[in-house]
Amino acid sequence: MSRYALGLDYGTNSCRSLLVDLDNGEELGSAVFPYPSGQMGILTDPSDPHVARQNPQDYLDGMVAIVRGALEQASERRPGFAANDVIGLGIDTTGSTPIPVDAAGTPLALKPEFRDNLNAYVWLWKDHTAYAEAAAITEKAAAMRPEYLAACGGIYSSEWWWSKIWRCSKVDPAVFAAAHSWVEHCDWLPAVLTGHTRPDLVKRSICAAGHKAMFAASWGGLPDTKFLASLDPALADLRGRLYDSAEPSDVSAGTLTAEWSERLGLPEGISVAVGAFDAHMGAVGAGVKPGTLVKILGTSTCDITVLPNAVELGAVPGVCGVVDGSVLPGHYGIEAGQSAVGDIFLWFVNNLVPDSYGRTIDEKFVEMERRLAVMKPGESGLLALDWNNGNRTVLVDVQLTGLILGQTLHTSAHEIYRALIEATAFGALTIVNRMEEYGITISQIVNTGGLAVKNATLMQIYADVLGRPLRVAASDQTCALGAALFGAASGGTVRLEEVQETCCRLREIEYVPIPKNQAIYAELFALYSQVHDAFGKNGSVELGRVMKELLRIRAAAQK
Amino acid sequence: MSRYALGLDYGTNSCRSLLVDLDNGEELGSAVFPYPSGQMGILTDPSDPHVARQNPQDYLDGMVAIVRGALEQASERRPGFAANDVIGLGIDTTGSTPIPVDAAGTPLALKPEFRDNLNAYVWLWKDHTAYAEAAAITEKAAAMRPEYLAACGGIYSSEWWWSKIWRCSKVDPAVFAAAHSWVEHCDWLPAVLTGHTRPDLVKRSICAAGHKAMFAASWGGLPDTKFLASLDPALADLRGRLYDSAEPSDVSAGTLTAEWSERLGLPEGISVAVGAFDAHMGAVGAGVKPGTLVKILGTSTCDITVLPNAVELGAVPGVCGVVDGSVLPGHYGIEAGQSAVGDIFLWFVNNLVPDSYGRTIDEKFVEMERRLAVMKPGESGLLALDWNNGNRTVLVDVQLTGLILGQTLHTSAHEIYRALIEATAFGALTIVNRMEEYGITISQIVNTGGLAVKNATLMQIYADVLGRPLRVAASDQTCALGAALFGAASGGTVRLEEVQETCCRLREIEYVPIPKNQAIYAELFALYSQVHDAFGKNGSVELGRVMKELLRIRAAAQK
Repeated sequence: MSRYALGLDYGTNSCRSLLVDLDNGEELGSAVFPYPSGQMGILTDPSDPHVARQNPQDYLDGMVAIVRGALEQASERRPGFAANDVIGLGIDTTGSTPIPVDAAGTPLALKPEFRDNLNAYVWLWKDHTAYAEAAAITEKAAAMRPEYLAACGGIYSSEWWWSKIWRCSKVDPAVFAAAHSWVEHCDWLPAVLTGHTRPDLVKRSICAAGHKAMFAASWGGLPDTKFLASLDPALADLRGRLYDSAEPSDVSAGTLTAEWSERLGLPEGISVAVGAFDAHMGAVGAGVKPGTLVKILGTSTCDITVLPNAVELGAVPGVCGVVDGSVLPGHYGIEAGQSAVGDIFLWFVNNLVPDSYGRTIDEKFVEMERRLAVMKPGESGLLALDWNNGNRTVLVDVQLTGLILGQTLHTSAHEIYRALIEATAFGALTIVNRMEEYGITISQIVNTGGLAVKNATLMQIYADVLGRPLRVAASDQTCALGAALFGAASGGTVRLEEVQETCCRLREIEYVPIPKNQAIYAELFALYSQVHDAFGKNGSVELGRVMKELLRIRAAAQK
Repeated sequence: MSRYALGLDYGTNSCRSLLVDLDNGEELGSAVFPYPSGQMGILTDPSDPHVARQNPQDYLDGMVAIVRGALEQASERRPGFAANDVIGLGIDTTGSTPIPVDAAGTPLALKPEFRDNLNAYVWLWKDHTAYAEAAAITEKAAAMRPEYLAACGGIYSSEWWWSKIWRCSKVDPAVFAAAHSWVEHCDWLPAVLTGHTRPDLVKRSICAAGHKAMFAASWGGLPDTKFLASLDPALADLRGRLYDSAEPSDVSAGTLTAEWSERLGLPEGISVAVGAFDAHMGAVGAGVKPGTLVKILGTSTCDITVLPNAVELGAVPGVCGVVDGSVLPGHYGIEAGQSAVGDIFLWFVNNLVPDSYGRTIDEKFVEMERRLAVMKPGESGLLALDWNNGNRTVLVDVQLTGLILGQTLHTSAHEIYRALIEATAFGALTIVNRMEEYGITISQIVNTGGLAVKNATLMQIYADVLGRPLRVAASDQTCALGAALFGAASGGTVRLEEVQETCCRLREIEYVPIPKNQAIYAELFALYSQVHDAFGKNGSVELGRVMKELLRIRAAAQK
């Protein structure tokens, strides 16, 4: 008899499902649902580019579509497939993506009186309105509770839980007052499916609670009342209506209700795993283990590895999450990332690439990649910073912006595109260097996400810049795969390590660094680091040679 | 009886004529001839973006077309117009634009054996291949002949005479050996028209000789043999086949030959003025006088003023030309400039503006200007450097490149276009500040050139950044007008000041600084100066606040 699990992956612009055979790793069905609200699923405010909200109704509508879609495909592909053999369901989402809810656990956005108020909607991870609050939390924690900061890399981010909730209390007291509690997107959906939406019943994800809500068993869960009151008495008051415990995703959030069983076409009573953030489940789906760094290359990136929690590990400055059990049970999850990677490329092609490259966005990408693939490192004379959406690791500063230098009167769009790819690679190397400096061994890098699968030129540039061979996870859907594996494990009948071993494979292709390119990128990375430190840190830096060095490297490359 | 003069203006991509009535300033005819060779008249080398050459045949073909075109128009516009009433002809060209010629004065490029060799063609002003030679000349002059350097702002440029000729001797000894002498483009054309092309007969322009060929009466003309030999014995050897004297343009280069009289349809024997560089004649056509700075806003810019030569004036660091008589007889000509202004905008729209702004370059410019005209200063959060073609004043360094910073994931093309305009305005202010620091009073700024006439938004930004009211010269063709006035004056029957008073007028429009904008631009200029000095000079600079200040200014502007 077959055993299947279903994983649901809620991304920034769409959600998607994956149905996997736990006994051989075969992927039998997968469906996508683009969120219908806003611009590609994101509700924006023309007067403030920091605003990014979502509509919770999109999540519910998408759930039905993608589960039923996956089941239908499985039935077509495998005669005799039975939905009754699905033994568990797991869900991952973006995060920190908090939702204000009423006492019954209903998102305020779904109530008629808040329909027109963006502050009552879901505060998507990439919402950066709370940068002032994040800075104030960092300052206060540095003075009062340095241990909180140490756990999140030294700087609290505007993308995280408390920054956003505090921001809401300041800019929209009515929404804040109407919110009996707040739940993470990844906690809300399992609660819906298991019928436990009342805030005190919601099982909270340790992955989401971890550094993003400053939750740790060692200091008694969430930040203490005194600390929160020092920020805002309203936050201290809210604390009692939040939570005291949080669970890893091999724990069950409950069982599927009859109502949702019927809506989804899945067996009633199967286990729904505690939710987690996409990157964490994606790392599991890509086969993360000690010594393996998983890079999830998408609109933004996450770089995740684990260390057995028996190991002594100090704080890693600028690395935002080191949380026990947040990725794999029994291990510290170590999380870093870049705030924008694919998003930078998409911004560039949407805004600055003429139609001589093609009429559609896709055509433009294809033509630019064709042209940049034949370029040599250093040949353009360009250097860029990857900060169009701030810098998550190692500077942890959203008040940073993009930079491109080295332009002449001959610089063309595909040259800048290549410089932007290189900038993100230099950012990735900065993260790897920081981890290794603090004793985290990286013996293998496994990549996943759209860019890893689709963009061979980018992968070769990354290999050349990182100076290591790069592998790519076999599954196109490592986040949903990880969620499915957790769904299975949460039922208690299979072990996570066992299904991870069966289902998580690598593609055959290996991107091996080319020594000649490595040498040029070492020179360019030194210049990147100078400009990075000059604009990203305090203190004096000499930059008078940067443009001249780029011209020298260009002249050498053109020979 | 009417008196007319004809001015011919040889630009980077085309040449054009202007026929003016000397008694009332009326412009009666004007024709344009785009150079047919290369890309918009420029011969380039795909393997080296620094190469920019021209075909001398284009100049001759253009001469006939634009003179006859102007005369035909005058005949149509004014019944009774007679070409016989043209009393003089003046010519301005780009520079330093040297041409290798044989012993008869024939450009090598016109000889069959050199037809396929770019080094035998005209070395256009914007050719930057000789940057290493320029640096070596600067270094050697600093050690041996500091007075040479003082006269050209402290740094010798790759755009100038000796850098290019020396470069040719290194990279193409065959061309160098075949060149009996070298002539400036502005000296060659009057020589052709007056039949004096033999190098020892060519009347040389003091404006071209001035700082660009390091010519000064005070040290006996061109640089001495010992100095040249210290660079390259071949240059010392060439010196004797160049020239010992140079003249201002109110001097006649000779009279029009019968052959050219027939080809052009002009009276035989009229005076042809000694040539000069476009910017210098343009400044005269725009009404330059002590206290008036003329800004010629085109693909690059020139900023020119004059001081009576009775005044004591020391060296002005980074201001490239202070030459007695180079602009107006009896005055020091003071010349500064930006290596690319319109060229930066053209580069941007050619390479980085999508067709959502329009299908043609012109449509794109129009749409971008429509959108940026409603933006507030500081609103984009962007800051750029105007160095895509290096920096002429005050850094005098071609080994500098462009820079744009402040990009988010929302930055659009017209915002960057505005930032590029602002960058050129900040570069312009840097020049004005430097002149004033060294005692050159500027009580009026008169603008001319395509951008001054066509781009009202740019002019308002310039007024806001410069903090002064800006006027625009009435003529669309100030360079050709200045050339015509010199042509008239060179005949000896009219005085230059007199015809300048009659013919050089201002448009009614005055661009007055808006105090609110001025205040924001003062903040942005401080940031520009920080980045300018960080990348353009040696020494340490703190830049860690730049991006945050831009975000603060943006937030304030958006309120």
